[in-house]
Amino acid sequence: MAFQLKILGSNSAIPAYGRNHSAQILIVNGSHYLIDCGEGTQLQIAKYKGKLHKIDNIFISHLHGDHYLGLLGLISSMHLQSRTKDLNIYGPVGLQEIITVQLKYSQTVLNYKVNLTELDANEHIKIHEDRNVTVHSFPLDHRINCNGFFIKEKEKPLRLIKEKLPEEISLSQIADLKKGMDVVDENGEVIYRNAEMTLPPKRSRSLAYCSDTKYDPDIVKYIAGADLLYHESTFLHENEYWAERTYHSTTKQAASIAKEAKVGKLLLGHFSARYKDLTPFQSEAQEIFKNSFLATEGQTYEVEDGLTQQ
Amino acid sequence: MAFQLKILGSNSAIPAYGRNHSAQILIVNGSHYLIDCGEGTQLQIAKYKGKLHKIDNIFISHLHGDHYLGLLGLISSMHLQSRTKDLNIYGPVGLQEIITVQLKYSQTVLNYKVNLTELDANEHIKIHEDRNVTVHSFPLDHRINCNGFFIKEKEKPLRLIKEKLPEEISLSQIADLKKGMDVVDENGEVIYRNAEMTLPPKRSRSLAYCSDTKYDPDIVKYIAGADLLYHESTFLHENEYWAERTYHSTTKQAASIAKEAKVGKLLLGHFSARYKDLTPFQSEAQEIFKNSFLATEGQTYEVEDGLTQQ
Repeated sequence: MAFQLKILGSNSAIPAYGRNHSAQILIVNGSHYLIDCGEGTQLQIAKYKGKLHKIDNIFISHLHGDHYLGLLGLISSMHLQSRTKDLNIYGPVGLQEIITVQLKYSQTVLNYKVNLTELDANEHIKIHEDRNVTVHSFPLDHRINCNGFFIKEKEKPLRLIKEKLPEEISLSQIADLKKGMDVVDENGEVIYRNAEMTLPPKRSRSLAYCSDTKYDPDIVKYIAGADLLYHESTFLHENEYWAERTYHSTTKQAASIAKEAKVGKLLLGHFSARYKDLTPFQSEAQEIFKNSFLATEGQTYEVEDGLTQQ
Repeated sequence: MAFQLKILGSNSAIPAYGRNHSAQILIVNGSHYLIDCGEGTQLQIAKYKGKLHKIDNIFISHLHGDHYLGLLGLISSMHLQSRTKDLNIYGPVGLQEIITVQLKYSQTVLNYKVNLTELDANEHIKIHEDRNVTVHSFPLDHRINCNGFFIKEKEKPLRLIKEKLPEEISLSQIADLKKGMDVVDENGEVIYRNAEMTLPPKRSRSLAYCSDTKYDPDIVKYIAGADLLYHESTFLHENEYWAERTYHSTTKQAASIAKEAKVGKLLLGHFSARYKDLTPFQSEAQEIFKNSFLATEGQTYEVEDGLTQQ
């Protein structure tokens, strides 16, 4: 059961040094979730052997071009590839109008349905749920309405202690055990005691996505304990003044959030075009939070299965 | 004095095999003209060492995404690079609304002026003129409103026969000769006869851009004698049925147009994603028009200076 984050782009406003705009795909147990969709995302997906038709849910943080300008091309290519299943898109108020206007002038009637949910940028709220995950959005502090996303695996069943299972146990009794119930006979007598035959469930893994935002400790409560935290660090520490002015974060600010939220791993991204060499980003962040890495295009960051619930 | 066409992308609707969407830059005597602007154009410009700030005029043929979805990113990057000079954009009705809506939601007030001219898709008309070129648009036969463009160097001055110039000739007299006038004295007597001291001007070079369109011999009159003709050939000859149905052209249809219009060189482009190997495009076209080539990403096609007017 995979939980993999593939980075398609992690550069900020002006693409530079071959680095592309924000986009990443989270794969959870075979389901593909696209988070932000900067210009060229469909090209990046093709480059890294991704599959457009597997994406059923797209989350757009905000309407600065470097986070969504690839969306129309992606939608069009899905149409040209004869997609028929629904596509869910979650994004800021305005996204519906942007899509509608462009489909109108290209005279495109999609052969699949887009379920677009426009988000309130001030709420912490569950916006999506399917068989694998729940997704919450929460407010980030940027120049325009901007949401962060917290994507978490749903609670998993208890694990059976196989050597304790009697041969005669039925499938429905096993299902009851997995749900945490004791197995009882027709008189209500306990036959198999749950506590004796099960172990705690595997951990529900999670990704927190925070781009774009200025340093904002208020978000810690929304992302606490995430296995992966993607947090923007547009600037190095020495450019803190510019981070503040442009509603972005520095390496050390991102690392402070990671430390306070006690996440597993910090992925830094949304690098400014002013920096050619990105290695100082990692070293600066590691001064505060050791498990800091660069979100590098084409790389996949995996959270292993098998960790047990704390 | 250069006249160079640089191909940034020449694939049709779905990008494939690393081939990008339609975009090309014509460079005429230092001025850069961008024709179509598919998704990722700004990335292609960077890849091929182009310069965003040199582009002052953009021509968009139609509002299918593969021809314009890179425009907003390009406009934004010009803004972020602190552009202050005007940008002229010529494109179909609807383009103003598409740009306005997206700038509204990103809360971007550009620090330069965009002069957007929405084109009538049924007219053959001069849409642009500057010190180097005139640009005409003309109707193409596609599923939605679509314009072709004919970009031609302005008429050049007569060339002086240097060995015939007397030492005492003044700059204003030289200017008169270049304009085709005889030089006269205060009494109206001819001192220098133009016909004896000048040669015909150098040829005014031209590019015709025809994408997207079904086979339409009516366009020959708009593009006759072009040095370079970029004509779409989405399909090979064997797929003529699909070309007809989708309002596109085949190799042989493009070559027939090139032959009839007596152009210098045909560049084939807008290749369908169904073809991996493009070499049959060239060989099929060459059966009808020998000077046929593939419009290949990253390649520059030059028309030499020095040809004299026919």
